[in-house]
Amino acid sequence: MISFEKLTQSGSARTGKIQTPRGEIPTPVFMPVGTLGTVKAMAPEETRELGASIILGNTYHLHLRPGDELVHRLGGLHRFMNWPFPILTDSGGFQVFSLAKLSKLTEEGVTFQSHLNGDTIVFTPEKSIEIQQNLGSDIMMCFDECIRLPATHAKIEDSIALTTRWAERCKAARTSDQALFGIIQGGLHLDLRQRSLDDLVDIGFDGYAIGGLSVGEDTKEMYEILHSFAHQLPDTYPRYLMGVGEPEDILEGIETGIDMFDCVLPTRNARNGCLFTSLGKISIKQSQYREDPLPPDPNCACYVCQKYSRAYLRHLYMSKEILSMRLNTHHNLHFYLKLVLNAREAIQNDQFTQYKKSFLEKYSQTA
Amino acid sequence: MISFEKLTQSGSARTGKIQTPRGEIPTPVFMPVGTLGTVKAMAPEETRELGASIILGNTYHLHLRPGDELVHRLGGLHRFMNWPFPILTDSGGFQVFSLAKLSKLTEEGVTFQSHLNGDTIVFTPEKSIEIQQNLGSDIMMCFDECIRLPATHAKIEDSIALTTRWAERCKAARTSDQALFGIIQGGLHLDLRQRSLDDLVDIGFDGYAIGGLSVGEDTKEMYEILHSFAHQLPDTYPRYLMGVGEPEDILEGIETGIDMFDCVLPTRNARNGCLFTSLGKISIKQSQYREDPLPPDPNCACYVCQKYSRAYLRHLYMSKEILSMRLNTHHNLHFYLKLVLNAREAIQNDQFTQYKKSFLEKYSQTA
Repeated sequence: MISFEKLTQSGSARTGKIQTPRGEIPTPVFMPVGTLGTVKAMAPEETRELGASIILGNTYHLHLRPGDELVHRLGGLHRFMNWPFPILTDSGGFQVFSLAKLSKLTEEGVTFQSHLNGDTIVFTPEKSIEIQQNLGSDIMMCFDECIRLPATHAKIEDSIALTTRWAERCKAARTSDQALFGIIQGGLHLDLRQRSLDDLVDIGFDGYAIGGLSVGEDTKEMYEILHSFAHQLPDTYPRYLMGVGEPEDILEGIETGIDMFDCVLPTRNARNGCLFTSLGKISIKQSQYREDPLPPDPNCACYVCQKYSRAYLRHLYMSKEILSMRLNTHHNLHFYLKLVLNAREAIQNDQFTQYKKSFLEKYSQTA
Repeated sequence: MISFEKLTQSGSARTGKIQTPRGEIPTPVFMPVGTLGTVKAMAPEETRELGASIILGNTYHLHLRPGDELVHRLGGLHRFMNWPFPILTDSGGFQVFSLAKLSKLTEEGVTFQSHLNGDTIVFTPEKSIEIQQNLGSDIMMCFDECIRLPATHAKIEDSIALTTRWAERCKAARTSDQALFGIIQGGLHLDLRQRSLDDLVDIGFDGYAIGGLSVGEDTKEMYEILHSFAHQLPDTYPRYLMGVGEPEDILEGIETGIDMFDCVLPTRNARNGCLFTSLGKISIKQSQYREDPLPPDPNCACYVCQKYSRAYLRHLYMSKEILSMRLNTHHNLHFYLKLVLNAREAIQNDQFTQYKKSFLEKYSQTA
């Protein structure tokens, strides 16, 4: 199991630590996404050296490939992928409702077709927990309904009620000592968010996540929910904002008291040649970088920025070299992990507001 | 410039060292291929840690992308790609005659179409040296005609005469302190090989390479040429067998007194899921490895074999993960570099014959 301790606070922003049997997670934390048992393009030692204290694995994807039972027989996900540090697994809910072709949603669970080969698969709360237990993650997530927006208040109300009943079943299904987080749904309705949260707190989880944001709504709407709602989450448990997001979204989340974040942006953008820098995002394929001897980010101390020029990174990208994806991913993960490290330090020094302002002033210039 | 010193001998096999301004190269040596300014899938520090003392860069490819003049303006290939150790560049001859669409071959040089965009390009001996000087490699190669086999004795005779005249022009064109090797052609004709060699020795180079082998002939024919001819190459200069080859070919070459090898096999095979092991090659995608907890090669001490199972490597390969290419390449390069390291030690102990026999006995079992 895990324990959470809040350490310092600056406004609503807070630092803390999550203690797990596989190591300590200083918060706020960014979790690199390791969809299929690898943070794409990275070796685990490299991800660790960049400062990752926990990574995320995808229940849906790992169930399809290579199969959670196979992973279990080979000693669990940590051993399989050579990452002996904490892992959080999502519940598969988000992928089932976004990637797969749904055929049936009932009280019992969801029937859908695999996006790989069309196989019919049934996910229930119990099945999701079984898979996550086979994977052996340190933190599991409850299986939730990710309703497609826009939807009526009444529809969303029904949906969070179902998510609550599924959360109860998830907790009842757990037979391991893995931690389990509840997922708050409710769209952009504060009253439904509050009800979902109250329901989950009544059941009692090891942490609380906000799901169903950053799924197409305006950034402004997401920020409003965060500012009016995030502080309602229990103060003594980790608060996790799922699938978020851009650097500025993460700082906004931290400002409202969120502790945990995950997002594919740093890794996915890297593979598309998009690099995060202190002066904004740059697209390395642009011809302006053809002969540019500068590092991607002159203010960055990472391995890539110490050793390589934009011209070289552009050449690798244009030539579709594998090293392009390695170096871009390395740099972007460094950027995200440094962003939250700096946020932690700023909170400790009670200077988070200044840090956020100063970061955004530079970042919004765009190089 | 470089200097070569022969250190020990075991039969015709020999150890030595090539001294270069960028470091010492113990021989026999295997040179990983870094076609476009990167050993595919590898970071340079990783390649170095595996024991590579020199890598190869491709003149033809780098001329097309990103362009040798651009590389020159950015400080040369070593700096551009973050590899401060020795680099050998080929002359472009092999690629011009194999990859590109030839339009004209004259005394002056070769006109061809880029395999990328069809642009018309002219390579001459002077142009090849100019490109290699722009790249700033430590060892350059003469621009040679790579004649398509089978060809008549008379045709090959004409071809080596042209290659000799081009070699003279290459030497005359050199204005830098980079070393320059001559390339012996002559197909499978011993008399023509000897004449080509004599011509080149008369001109005088810093090393001598055997070109035009491992281009489709029987392994037996290649071995016959090696055994009857390799010892004719000057004893006091490095001897380089270009583009060779399978592990058994490299040991055969070492046995006949060859010092230097390069080949895309370890890196290219890796990307296709083919792993070299002490018990032969294995194709990691085979279903027999689906749940195999063993490392790729139980007798291997490399990072991959210490940390990962065949089951994991198969999963990465089947899922087309970038880490698959990284780990497979790492393992295969380790295999090749260890093969020549062990060969060096065996020669030093005057036990090369036994080493070769013992390696081949195991290797030919196929796992």
